[in-house]
Amino acid sequence: MARLVLKFGGTSVANIERIRNVARHVKREVDAGHQVAVVVSAMSGKTNELVAWCREASPMHDAREYDAVVASGEQVTAGLLAITLQALGVDARSWLGWQIPIQTDGAHGAARITGIDGARLIEAFDKHNQVAVIAGFQGIDETTGRITTLGRGGSDTSAVAIAAAVHADRCDIYTDVDGVYTTDPRVVPNASRLDRVSFEEMLEMASLGAKVLQVRSVELAMIHKVRTFVRSSFDDPDAPRPGTLICDEEDILEQQVVTGIAFSRDEAQITLRRVADHPGIAASIFGPLADANINVDMIIQVESDDTTTTDITFTVPASSYALARQILEERRDTIRYATLQGATDVVKISAIGIGMRSHAGVAAKGFRALAAKGINIRAITTSEIKFSILIDSEYTELAVRTLHSLYGLDKKPDETPNEA
Amino acid sequence: MARLVLKFGGTSVANIERIRNVARHVKREVDAGHQVAVVVSAMSGKTNELVAWCREASPMHDAREYDAVVASGEQVTAGLLAITLQALGVDARSWLGWQIPIQTDGAHGAARITGIDGARLIEAFDKHNQVAVIAGFQGIDETTGRITTLGRGGSDTSAVAIAAAVHADRCDIYTDVDGVYTTDPRVVPNASRLDRVSFEEMLEMASLGAKVLQVRSVELAMIHKVRTFVRSSFDDPDAPRPGTLICDEEDILEQQVVTGIAFSRDEAQITLRRVADHPGIAASIFGPLADANINVDMIIQVESDDTTTTDITFTVPASSYALARQILEERRDTIRYATLQGATDVVKISAIGIGMRSHAGVAAKGFRALAAKGINIRAITTSEIKFSILIDSEYTELAVRTLHSLYGLDKKPDETPNEA
Repeated sequence: MARLVLKFGGTSVANIERIRNVARHVKREVDAGHQVAVVVSAMSGKTNELVAWCREASPMHDAREYDAVVASGEQVTAGLLAITLQALGVDARSWLGWQIPIQTDGAHGAARITGIDGARLIEAFDKHNQVAVIAGFQGIDETTGRITTLGRGGSDTSAVAIAAAVHADRCDIYTDVDGVYTTDPRVVPNASRLDRVSFEEMLEMASLGAKVLQVRSVELAMIHKVRTFVRSSFDDPDAPRPGTLICDEEDILEQQVVTGIAFSRDEAQITLRRVADHPGIAASIFGPLADANINVDMIIQVESDDTTTTDITFTVPASSYALARQILEERRDTIRYATLQGATDVVKISAIGIGMRSHAGVAAKGFRALAAKGINIRAITTSEIKFSILIDSEYTELAVRTLHSLYGLDKKPDETPNEA
Repeated sequence: MARLVLKFGGTSVANIERIRNVARHVKREVDAGHQVAVVVSAMSGKTNELVAWCREASPMHDAREYDAVVASGEQVTAGLLAITLQALGVDARSWLGWQIPIQTDGAHGAARITGIDGARLIEAFDKHNQVAVIAGFQGIDETTGRITTLGRGGSDTSAVAIAAAVHADRCDIYTDVDGVYTTDPRVVPNASRLDRVSFEEMLEMASLGAKVLQVRSVELAMIHKVRTFVRSSFDDPDAPRPGTLICDEEDILEQQVVTGIAFSRDEAQITLRRVADHPGIAASIFGPLADANINVDMIIQVESDDTTTTDITFTVPASSYALARQILEERRDTIRYATLQGATDVVKISAIGIGMRSHAGVAAKGFRALAAKGINIRAITTSEIKFSILIDSEYTELAVRTLHSLYGLDKKPDETPNEA
């Protein structure tokens, strides 16, 4: 007997027929003797509908009211799944964020979970042998008693946090892919599914553009050491595949040097030429951008050709590009730069692997391979277990495939084909 | 300064444009210096959608889960109206049933309000000068902490109960008609809007087929003496008409003998001929019907022509007719009757008026007028302030118009025409 938390996203619960399929997955685990909590998202499309109404009511809406409106989507799915499970003979009840409660801070629309009282859920498991169907994405600000939401994708975070709170043996994130891949199979048909990936690597992948899990949920899984599987809700409920286990690196026996190649097209590059080299230069540029909530990523500073000034290049999300330009142009006299250059047709490509810690020259090997294909690198950043490069977006596929092949990630000919 | 509760139904909040219209009604009252609570229903169509999902998930669904699913509709409207009010510069916040709390018993799907703590709402009025936007139709079973709903039309009841709890000076039920009419204007074009009607009369009208207010809400208004207006949400928010006041009969100066004519087509008649006249006869017939939750209304018992047996006629809701027949046919040997006759093409017509208490012969005058038109009366019941007759449904319009005219309810030629 194990205690499991299963999480199903919006496409997995899009209608009653799919909710029935989810119920069969749950029943399989119950029949195997496990204690089960299920975390559900809103039916796909519902959250967008609710958000659109809020915007129509007022573009500048009160985030507390937005949360009350939007959290209703998960409430509906939780009730419907409980009904469906009961119809299959599985005892179940729905739990809303405020009923458990899932406590959060007061940052409505993007709240952080501050505590979960697992007592009532554990009682439901131990005393009533009952499946807990939990509305994901929502909590309660206990100071005010108002409903909060965790921000888009927050149901992954709900699931991992609940798994930690009830000391679950495992958290299964069911999604529309059958696991975590070495890269996006739409770009590299040779991409292969990973059996295991470490928390650290997954965290980098999620941060760097792999959309399979929300960053915050991976952080939480890492902190609380929640063994988390990513697996497919479209598998036959009676014969599911195991998916990818995200776990401590000690649990990964055969470590690859590079585990995956991630890429993000949501990037824009800004270069300030010949910035007067004075103290506080970074603060004068990045302070105003931070005030405008613009997330600056790669930053490179090099001396200009005239050696008395400096060139500064950095990236921002493509959606913040116009605002960032405007802010910098307004402050041209304060910052003191000659020209501002920008580009939005750029892509950030990252190679991730805990093996980089112990292997030197992994990045250099990659740079050489890309140069050999005639790909120009605009910027580079590195960390202990990954390196990222910024290149022109037209080279995306070529660069991803080159690195994927270089680091030995291509599917072996004898491997069973993936049936994602 | 007065304290008001305004209630808006599903058609009044069917989309954001209509919600904006509702917000203008609320703003008018706030600008006039009043403290305002607003009770809202789900956007029209939403409750049906949610109910259909529950049924699709399982025809025999858990009423507790049904309530969690269905209550989400009012939650959405409450948040959206709060946002819309804020956009008009009116401070407002949404309140869900469990947040106030509105306590109910545990009869999920048809719960009764057992108590409302008005303290937090009154604090919002007095300390924050804030409009309270309250999700109607829902409460919380405080024993279990689960969401309950009051049953269809329950938002009227929510509004009146909240008006009582916060000691409101007035409760305005906004609907798609501009008040209570002497009868259905679709049947009698000469029907006129009543300025005032007593609680007792309204209770009879609601029970007898006038669909303008839910019966339970009128009961509550009568018990707690909540002055309640029925008025139109489609009036110009800047120049609304007053509607109909439902109030104590002492507040009605010029009392009519008959105030209104109600009718209900949802009737079926069953006659058991030559029932063996033995003790416990009524129990043997009506006991099994009550056990099946069939609501028996008019009951008439007369000796049969052979004087040793008796004929029993009664009405049931048309929707229960088939089941009632089946139950009685199965028990033919126990009840001991000769034949069972039934009719579904019948209508119940009622004349209501507190003036009947002090005026004799009101009903007899009506029977004579109907007989003069050749209308055969199948059954009669009377109470202190109303009489009801059962007739063939093809005579509905003729009978209603005859009584409406007989009791002086036709609109006077000098009256301004109704612009419903």
